This record gives sequence, structure tokens and C-alpha cells, in this order.
Amino acid sequence: MQALVYHGPGQKKLDDRAKPVVQSPTDAVVRITKTTICGTDLHILKGDVPTCKPGTTLGHEGVGVIDSVGPGVVTFKPGDRVLISCISACGRCEYCRKGMYSHCTTGGWILGNSIDGTQAEFVRIPHADTSLYPIPDGADEEALVMLSDILPTGFECGVLNGKVQPGSTVAIVGSGPIGLAALLTAQLYSPSEIIMIDLDENRLAVGKQFGATATVNSTDGTAAQQVMALTGGRGVDTAIEAVGIPATFTLCEDIVTAGGTIANVGVHGVKADLHLERLWSHNITITTRLVDTVSMPMLLKTVQSKRIDAKQLVTHRFKLSEILQAYDTFDRAADTKALKVLIEA
Amino acid sequence: MQALVYHGPGQKKLDDRAKPVVQSPTDAVVRITKTTICGTDLHILKGDVPTCKPGTTLGHEGVGVIDSVGPGVVTFKPGDRVLISCISACGRCEYCRKGMYSHCTTGGWILGNSIDGTQAEFVRIPHADTSLYPIPDGADEEALVMLSDILPTGFECGVLNGKVQPGSTVAIVGSGPIGLAALLTAQLYSPSEIIMIDLDENRLAVGKQFGATATVNSTDGTAAQQVMALTGGRGVDTAIEAVGIPATFTLCEDIVTAGGTIANVGVHGVKADLHLERLWSHNITITTRLVDTVSMPMLLKTVQSKRIDAKQLVTHRFKLSEILQAYDTFDRAADTKALKVLIEA
Repeated sequence: MQALVYHGPGQKKLDDRAKPVVQSPTDAVVRITKTTICGTDLHILKGDVPTCKPGTTLGHEGVGVIDSVGPGVVTFKPGDRVLISCISACGRCEYCRKGMYSHCTTGGWILGNSIDGTQAEFVRIPHADTSLYPIPDGADEEALVMLSDILPTGFECGVLNGKVQPGSTVAIVGSGPIGLAALLTAQLYSPSEIIMIDLDENRLAVGKQFGATATVNSTDGTAAQQVMALTGGRGVDTAIEAVGIPATFTLCEDIVTAGGTIANVGVHGVKADLHLERLWSHNITITTRLVDTVSMPMLLKTVQSKRIDAKQLVTHRFKLSEILQAYDTFDRAADTKALKVLIEA
Repeated sequence: MQALVYHGPGQKKLDDRAKPVVQSPTDAVVRITKTTICGTDLHILKGDVPTCKPGTTLGHEGVGVIDSVGPGVVTFKPGDRVLISCISACGRCEYCRKGMYSHCTTGGWILGNSIDGTQAEFVRIPHADTSLYPIPDGADEEALVMLSDILPTGFECGVLNGKVQPGSTVAIVGSGPIGLAALLTAQLYSPSEIIMIDLDENRLAVGKQFGATATVNSTDGTAAQQVMALTGGRGVDTAIEAVGIPATFTLCEDIVTAGGTIANVGVHGVKADLHLERLWSHNITITTRLVDTVSMPMLLKTVQSKRIDAKQLVTHRFKLSEILQAYDTFDRAADTKALKVLIEA
């Protein structure tokens, strides 16, 4: 079968690989129908993710059809349409039992990381009963691919951890796919203001179209002052960091109000400065989180009911045979205006 | 009257000052019977607190007797014995109405900071109805002085923000008065382990006597490894930072388990490194807080019922006329083994 394989920093190829088989009684093999590329895949390609070894098929998002199941799988049978969670969860360990699937002792984020992933014709899914979700009849698969990672990440790491509330004020630093996913899901809680902050005017325009009440271009270094002016000098109740660099984290420290929350979503490669000399008395909360995807059943309903239009995140479509071109389009997002690129297997 | 007055960095004197008077209808003047010295007073004397101007009477803790009240005070009358909160709260502003008295728009921590404090024979207390608490008959005033600041600070900023739970594991970095206050109040929630960490063997011994299940001397730089060994390689659910320097905050980052909380209590003078390159996926929470003293009525009951023996924090006793000696004793705690020094006015 065809698979997009990581061959070390800066190197990837569309290779011919053996079709995966059930290895453990709780495994399922899924025939991928649609997958996508995540910013995290680009991190891997930069060599930032040492757990991902050369030779691994990339990808942790997708929908497909059950091809075969191990004898321990009770929820799914061949032919069932399924949504794949980016997080594999055994459902039995200490972490899974408290809903922290991201730290499952035999799962977590392993797909396209420590085991072969979804950018292929077939993928082996461990712990299938608790890592796959049935697709409702009539559901739009393109929208559902956004549920594998991006929507629950924006929602759990940004909106839930950030304690977005009716009437509260929110700033989202980074108007890329993850920031936009936070923007879409923040609106479930009816905050009074959602300010999108980015360097890219096109992404800010998309933010406005997706429901932001204001946008701030941070190019000139006055983003903090602009947010203060927009909030009557008060700052925001929730600052969502959706970039992953020290400067954007510091911006969150500058704009969070006393008693507010900084919810980190970004994947960081280096440390950031925590200005405790100012913040120690500021009654703030800072949260970090690798998505657990515990909210997938809930988000699935919001997508099905069209309360969230997840499909609008998809800007480009490719065949699996064109995946190198898809990577190029996604990597050059500032030029191509790509948000999520969909790949049909 | 006698008052301990700050005269700029490194300078303090026991001066003769005019007795304070009611200035606003909601003020009370309290005759101090007992007060104490806080580590924050030492910070002021180092010049770390620019809001405290030379000429200010220090002190934000104490008990006393109502001397006079303004016409707007309805809860107290002259002769009533009262406990003074270190935080003045109007009870009416946005922050007070959500219980965040520390950020009261006309109060907060002002005593012994932006207005004259309690290390004197008399003190003016703004917003008296909502900043003083009646003392129950038969209560031990020495124990109650610990409720002005230190017990609620350890409890609210450390134990409540740190989400200490029955069966959970806790490490408290810093076994000084605030760390010990966190230790005493953490036990209200029955955690399975409370590990005290300090450089000072005497303070660790006190920690053990106050209920710590283990102690770690951090002198040799292996504190993180020792905590990991004590927790089966897992780390602690709650790490309470009760020192206020970058090294101790970093230690908390090193020992908090996935899904755990770092509750900062320490007053910091400089920034710290936040290791987001490791912690972004660790599902942790970091909190900061200036004490609100919302828990005073609750803690008062735990002290009255002897569930918490607050008086054991008092190691030395002085008269107000001896307050310079009291400062010296408190400042040289490593030699004098002082925890809290009580001053009788």
C-alpha cells in the first residue's frame, strides 16, 4: 500500500509499504478514506519529535472503514465507518480512568509518532474499542476529519482549560487551524468578546469570518496595548496560546486580567519566561494539555447539528498520490492561504 | 503612639506617631493587642515593594479591640474584639463580589503597604465591616494572629489552588512559616503524602513534627530525584512553591506529575523559566494568587475546634517596645530558629 513515511529530519517519501495486520486482540485495521496533515507533522519533519523514528508512517487524523478486527474488539466489525482519534486510549489504566487519555500508559499520542500513522491506505489502531468512534449515518466525512485532533485540541486545551464562560472576554493568539478551532468551539460558551491575534491579515480575515469580534495584527509589536484598549484596560479573562513560541506565550502573560487564565495549546520547542515578579499576585492560572479527545462524542454532536461548521477549515483537497504536493501547500500556508488540506486515500 | 515605621530600603524605626482617626464612614480604628512580622515586611525593607513609601507604618497582621468606628460601620462597636485581615475588602466592587478580595479596587493588600499598618498601638482599618472578623469568646489571640495572613495564604494559595485531595501526593517547597501553614491546612484534605523540602534541617524537623510524611533536604541539588524516588517515579499531584525564587519554582516543574498542579505561594522578585518544551504536553496547571482571605471564617472554625493548632507556629514573643529585636530575631531565622514572632502592643 502507499504510505507517507518519515525518513529523518527534512526527509519524507511516499513509499510502498506492507498493509498492516492485527497484532493484538484489541487492534483494528482501518482502511483510510480521508486524512489530513497537522502542524505537528511539520514539527516531526523538522526533527523536533525524537519519539518519532525514521521509517514511521506519519499522520494521526482520519476517517475510514473497518477492514479487520482482533478477537477482543466488541464495538466494531468490518465495514463500519469510523472516526479515528489522534489519541489511543486503553480505557483501563489510571490515566484513562480519569479521562486523561493523552497519558494512557500504553497509548496516548502514538499514531504517526511511535507507531505507523494514518497517511496511508491502511492503519492499525490499537485499543480500537476506546480509540475509534462510530460515524453517524449521513455525516460529512470532511467535517469529521477535523474531529480527530484539531477541534478537540482547540476545545479541550484552549476553551475548556481556559474556562471560557458566557459574557467573558477571550483572546486567541494565533489564527492558524488550531486557533481557529478554538475560535469555533469557544462560541459554544457565548463569550462577549473573542479577539484573534496573528501576523497574517488573511488568517485574521478568516478569524473575523469565523466569528471573532475583533482582530489584532501583532506585526508592529503593539498587540498587548491593542488588546488592553479593546478591553477597557482590563485585559482578557482567557488568553489562548495557539502558536508555540516564547513571544506569543509572553503576550498572553501581558494581556491576561487578574483572576484570568492562560490556556496553552501550542507545541513549544524551547522554554519561555514566566514573569512571576509581576504575576505572583495576579491570581492567574496557566494550563498545559495534550488533547485527551474526551470531548469527541460531544463535539461530534455539535458538528452533526451544524452548531459548528467544521468543514470550513478545509481549504485544499488532494489524492493520497499527491500528498507531497499537499505537504508543500500546507507548509507554505502564508502563500497558499491553506488551513487544513484534505487527503483522500 | 508607638509605631514601627519604614524609612526607605534597609531603614526602620520605632517612632512616635499620631493616633489614627476615622477618615471615611466605613473605617474603624482598632487598638492592637497582638501583631506579628511577615516575610513580606522583610521584602519591603529590602526595597522590593515600591508601593510602600518611606514613612509608612508596617504590618498587616493582628488582633485587637475596636476603639472607634465611622457612622457607616454596622457590624462592630467600640470594645469588640476583632481579628484583622491582611486584605481590606469593600465588599461591593466586581472583584469582591466574586470573592477575589485581594484585587478589591479600593482595598486589597494596603495595610502596611500603601497605608499605615498594624505594627503600632492603633491602626485605621478601611472597609471595617468586610475586613474585620469578630473573635469568638474564649479564643486564643496568639493562634488567631496566624489567621490574619499566614494560614489563609498557605491554605488558599497553596492547598485550595493546588487542589489537594484525599489520597493525593503533595510536596511543599519551603518549610518556613508559609510552607508550614500550607502543611497544617493541607492535612484538612487528608492527602496520602506530604513531602516538605527545605535547605534547613531544623525547619524540616518542624515540618515532620507538624505532620509531613517525609522530608527532603535540597542542599545537595538532588531534591527532584529524591521526590521521584519517594513517589515511585511518578512525581506529586500538587507542588506548592513557598519560597519565591526561580530555583524553587523550577524544582516544582521537575516534580509535578502529569495532570498535576503547581501552586505558587512565594513572592517573586524576578522571572522564572517555564519549561514549556517539556510541560506543554504534561497537562499541568500553574496557579498564582495573592491571598483573598475568603477562607478566614472557615479557618477560624478549624482553629477554634483545635483541628489546626496554629499557635505552634509562634516561637518567640516580644513587647511592641522590643520590636526592633523581634525583627532581628525573625530576620536571622536560620540561627534563631524563629518561625513567627509575636508582638504584644
